[in-house]
Amino acid sequence: MFEDFINNKDTWLSGKGPFSEIIFSSRIRLARNLADYSFPLRANKFQKEKVLKKIEEVHHGTPALKNTLFLRMQDVSELDRQFLLERHLVSQEHVLNFEGKGLVISSDEKISLMVNEEDHLRMQVIFSGFDLKKCWEIVDEIDNEMQKRINFAFLPNIGFLTSCPTNVGTALRASCMLHLPALTFTKRINKILELIAKISFVTRGFFGEGTQALGDFFQISNQISLGVSEAEVIENLSGVVNQVKEQEMDARNLLLKKQKLNLEDNVWRSLGTLQNCRLISSKEALSHLSILSLGLDLGIIDDISREILNSLFLEIQPAHLQKIEGRILKEGERDYIRAQILRDKLGQKND
Amino acid sequence: MFEDFINNKDTWLSGKGPFSEIIFSSRIRLARNLADYSFPLRANKFQKEKVLKKIEEVHHGTPALKNTLFLRMQDVSELDRQFLLERHLVSQEHVLNFEGKGLVISSDEKISLMVNEEDHLRMQVIFSGFDLKKCWEIVDEIDNEMQKRINFAFLPNIGFLTSCPTNVGTALRASCMLHLPALTFTKRINKILELIAKISFVTRGFFGEGTQALGDFFQISNQISLGVSEAEVIENLSGVVNQVKEQEMDARNLLLKKQKLNLEDNVWRSLGTLQNCRLISSKEALSHLSILSLGLDLGIIDDISREILNSLFLEIQPAHLQKIEGRILKEGERDYIRAQILRDKLGQKND
Repeated sequence: MFEDFINNKDTWLSGKGPFSEIIFSSRIRLARNLADYSFPLRANKFQKEKVLKKIEEVHHGTPALKNTLFLRMQDVSELDRQFLLERHLVSQEHVLNFEGKGLVISSDEKISLMVNEEDHLRMQVIFSGFDLKKCWEIVDEIDNEMQKRINFAFLPNIGFLTSCPTNVGTALRASCMLHLPALTFTKRINKILELIAKISFVTRGFFGEGTQALGDFFQISNQISLGVSEAEVIENLSGVVNQVKEQEMDARNLLLKKQKLNLEDNVWRSLGTLQNCRLISSKEALSHLSILSLGLDLGIIDDISREILNSLFLEIQPAHLQKIEGRILKEGERDYIRAQILRDKLGQKND
Repeated sequence: MFEDFINNKDTWLSGKGPFSEIIFSSRIRLARNLADYSFPLRANKFQKEKVLKKIEEVHHGTPALKNTLFLRMQDVSELDRQFLLERHLVSQEHVLNFEGKGLVISSDEKISLMVNEEDHLRMQVIFSGFDLKKCWEIVDEIDNEMQKRINFAFLPNIGFLTSCPTNVGTALRASCMLHLPALTFTKRINKILELIAKISFVTRGFFGEGTQALGDFFQISNQISLGVSEAEVIENLSGVVNQVKEQEMDARNLLLKKQKLNLEDNVWRSLGTLQNCRLISSKEALSHLSILSLGLDLGIIDDISREILNSLFLEIQPAHLQKIEGRILKEGERDYIRAQILRDKLGQKND
């Protein structure tokens, strides 16, 4: 299953969206619950199944979901569940405790709706680059169409009800995945993360909630969903993301002006390591790919394709390696296959 | 001065002597003092000059020194003094406090006699590989010929007198420079160094007394020179060196059997770093060259010349860089030039 995903040319990691050299992707997620059903955290097997059936039924007749597939997570193999997680299409919770859970997913990976996760519905739309508006248009359309046939839990003066009180209200989370290697290199990143936290925005790692900042990727999202409109949430986040983008651009210019040789040394060493290693962890590979990506943005290296480089950020993850190899790999084997793929895709250097 | 030394094909680092994949070089040093002159540590300027004149005079008529040059160290530039030190032809002491000191040196670098170092004469003969016998033959010949015209300080039942009591007797120090990357990689080296110390042999780093083990090079020499014959000293050292060589060979076989992939990964990464770096310290470069050398010995890489690799061990040193560039380099500049030379000499990799 999902074999074609690896070759999708237009995903959130394609590097084709606006400002995507710094803002890799934009994402909006809406949480919804069915008014007449127990919320997932309190629901038993049968109640969950009822929700699944209801969503499956509605899925068929929703025009905005015409290019999507409805799946029960128990019908998805362990490897494929992990694969979806690595592609940021489902949450860790959806992969680990998959019983009674469902997924609606589009073949271009832009739309994914988790069913019976923390809420009955978690609708995600994700695009390459800085494009929250497009995400909002699509998720809003899906939401509107579904509301015609589903009675969502909603209270006037409060808004949509959710399992976790932090989501009540708009139940909207907007986020952008930023690649901030220059702020990391110049060690300015921590101060910026502090400032972001002070104005009530949240920073997370490459794989979302509770994950580390890997490969200098930082996901910034809104914390507040109550008492503000959807448009305000998106506008506020856009403002913050824009400012961080400017800071990263400043840091890149400063690096080029004051530490060019040092930067070049780092970029070329990362390339040398990736072109020669025989064993490499995903964490180490991500950090070299991040530096390489910066080198490509700044014109230090130019004979590597942006598309190949960006796709490698996912292809070096464990489930991706196994999908590419077409077999289950033991843990020790993965570092070897990962190195092989990196050497293969990044080829020889040409001075 | 010494411009030709860099192109000498048959020095102690040539890798052409017996067992030179592990035992890089063999060296014998004799200390001698002129009976009727103050020893250097107690001599004033005029007394030192007298010794220099005497040696200069004897140098002319000594057949074993026919291809050598007599120099006063004050006539050697600071850069050239450093260059001689890096080539292991003079001691640090001879470079730092060079006044009143002299040097007799052969164009093939095998013979070097320091005048007015700690002793009036420190005669060194050095060869590639495991060849203490050849070193002894030549240094013994020089010593015998000089003794015909110089009255050396000597006491029956004790032997030759020297400034430091640890050298009294034969006044002979024999040493071998061993390259032990596999013992280092497998972390067995410390136990072996402890054992060597227990049986009264001395281990030193790449640049002799008081220096660190760089690039996995270890110089092993005798500690005792009193109450044993020259032949015994050489035989005892040979025995120890042979045993360490066997241990290194065992460690290499073990690595190939049990950690081949890990080793390959290290070798290729070192090559990738050296082929791509833009800034590199001599310490880091030495450690990569050491791993590369092991990789070449074990057939992991094969498209790099042993001669070029070995010559790089010296060419990356500060004075060598400046001789090659033909100008004085500031400290910051050296890391850049060093990286350039390494990329240049190690070229592109061919898979």
